[in-house]
Amino acid sequence: MGVLAGIDVGGTKVAFGVGEPNGTLRATERRPTELSGDGTTDVKRMAADLRALLDRAGVSLRDVDAIGVSVPSPLDPEAGVVLDPPNLAGWHEVPVRALLGDAFGIPVFVENDANAAALAEWHFGAARGFDHVAYLTMSTGVGGGLILGGRLHRGVYASAGEVGHAPIEWDGEPCSCGLRGCLEAYVGGASWTRRLRAVTPTDSRVAVLAGGRAQTKPEHVVAAAREGDAFALAEMARWNEYVARGLVHLVFTIAPQAIVLGTIAVAAGEALAFAPIRARVRERCWPFLVEKLQIVPAALGESLPYHAAIGVALEGLRAAARP
Amino acid sequence: MGVLAGIDVGGTKVAFGVGEPNGTLRATERRPTELSGDGTTDVKRMAADLRALLDRAGVSLRDVDAIGVSVPSPLDPEAGVVLDPPNLAGWHEVPVRALLGDAFGIPVFVENDANAAALAEWHFGAARGFDHVAYLTMSTGVGGGLILGGRLHRGVYASAGEVGHAPIEWDGEPCSCGLRGCLEAYVGGASWTRRLRAVTPTDSRVAVLAGGRAQTKPEHVVAAAREGDAFALAEMARWNEYVARGLVHLVFTIAPQAIVLGTIAVAAGEALAFAPIRARVRERCWPFLVEKLQIVPAALGESLPYHAAIGVALEGLRAAARP
Repeated sequence: MGVLAGIDVGGTKVAFGVGEPNGTLRATERRPTELSGDGTTDVKRMAADLRALLDRAGVSLRDVDAIGVSVPSPLDPEAGVVLDPPNLAGWHEVPVRALLGDAFGIPVFVENDANAAALAEWHFGAARGFDHVAYLTMSTGVGGGLILGGRLHRGVYASAGEVGHAPIEWDGEPCSCGLRGCLEAYVGGASWTRRLRAVTPTDSRVAVLAGGRAQTKPEHVVAAAREGDAFALAEMARWNEYVARGLVHLVFTIAPQAIVLGTIAVAAGEALAFAPIRARVRERCWPFLVEKLQIVPAALGESLPYHAAIGVALEGLRAAARP
Repeated sequence: MGVLAGIDVGGTKVAFGVGEPNGTLRATERRPTELSGDGTTDVKRMAADLRALLDRAGVSLRDVDAIGVSVPSPLDPEAGVVLDPPNLAGWHEVPVRALLGDAFGIPVFVENDANAAALAEWHFGAARGFDHVAYLTMSTGVGGGLILGGRLHRGVYASAGEVGHAPIEWDGEPCSCGLRGCLEAYVGGASWTRRLRAVTPTDSRVAVLAGGRAQTKPEHVVAAAREGDAFALAEMARWNEYVARGLVHLVFTIAPQAIVLGTIAVAAGEALAFAPIRARVRERCWPFLVEKLQIVPAALGESLPYHAAIGVALEGLRAAARP
């Protein structure tokens, strides 16, 4: 196999990567998204930028086996068409696969960002070597992707793994998605931030670190919890408890070998997040389902966008080679 | 492809079937399980009974491509070893695959009963033609199996689809499995029966149909609900609500195209179960995830044990043919 190229399209930044199937990155580039108001125009500019990166890296297009694109939902991954993501203004049914296919003349694969991140952690990160993996990231919202039986499980509209919106409290908190009691309404960064700005004691260490309760974010809870602050530790315990609820559902539903948690969990680390989450999941699952289960931090960090895009290319080629 | 044979081992009955890959049954037989106290002895007797059925059906062993065996959990399906199912006394690490392989000299595949039933409904029943299917049966307990990406998803210890023990009320009712708030504790036949014998008004239509509150079963609720009895309708509504909770989790986690419900739901039928369950799931899921989702009754009924066993044989051959 030759070289893989990829584009990770985010609401604020676009990342371009050229790498090898083993995950080694040969060249990367990142720039602000700068939407033109027309999705097709945006994709054509991305194509020019990717071509420039390949040139700069001294990689001939003849050596590139495929291009992977990670984009926000919703999309039609089979057709490679991005529908109308809320954070990409001017994008309406943009035929990304066709546009890039025309521009480069090589296979193009398009995947939603959560699935792409799951592929990245599976092929290049914390979940290498497992057949059944759930990936969950709690940043602004909660996204997820599933690797089952050694391949990406997409489900209807490539929406499998959207466990951020499974109800962990049936009549619970309202969620920004319009439903109630979603996991995201309890553990998503935006929801938690809203809560913190309402419940953080104004004289607490969390508020002090944030420079005022109105500026409080999850990162201030993590920092104050590291210092042993009681309010911060209670908030972390609450967050861990709700994360564990989501994971217990995953364990009984898909019986994974590994669960990879990103963003907030990674920032909080072993003592504040992973150890208590693991303990709670073990309490609430049958022993044989969890005795070998790995609940581990995402490994890719800053390289995630590049690896996500290249992971999409790699998985696309693998899927195309299947009978 | 030739003929398939199968054995469905239940706690009370053993079913033997010979059929074609399209699901046509050529011969069937059923007898009480009659455990000897030694699993190996029991399997050898089953082998003799299957051989007798093939003879009676005029099917030569040369024309049989594979034998499928459906057994209660726990088991190691890769090795074909049944561990120690609570309802098969005397069975401890019984090497079913090896025993039947030695007896017949053809491929033998072993699967747990919930996965086998899922395969049966997928290959021969209500879920034909879908790639992503969840099967759930609420009989004594709640069992389930998942078909994802056009093949059985087993997960760790072949336990995927055990959504009967996912917590639908985190601090809810105790479950016979030792955990709390499991779906099974609310909608399983045994749990519901226990509840009914405690809460059914002694002069209610349900109690009258049962011949006394102490004999009340879910079937009496279904019958009384058909007559419009208010208590029975309230019990059905409660049952439907909890079933819907379980299905909402499935929808967000695996994004299925079809969900097949067996036993109690089938007995209750469209008006008393499927229509309200569908409506509730639609209320609590994103529209695009459910717009094409089929929530349908299991189709196989009395033939399920034979089709389950033959489905295991069929799926085993398909899996073995994969690269």
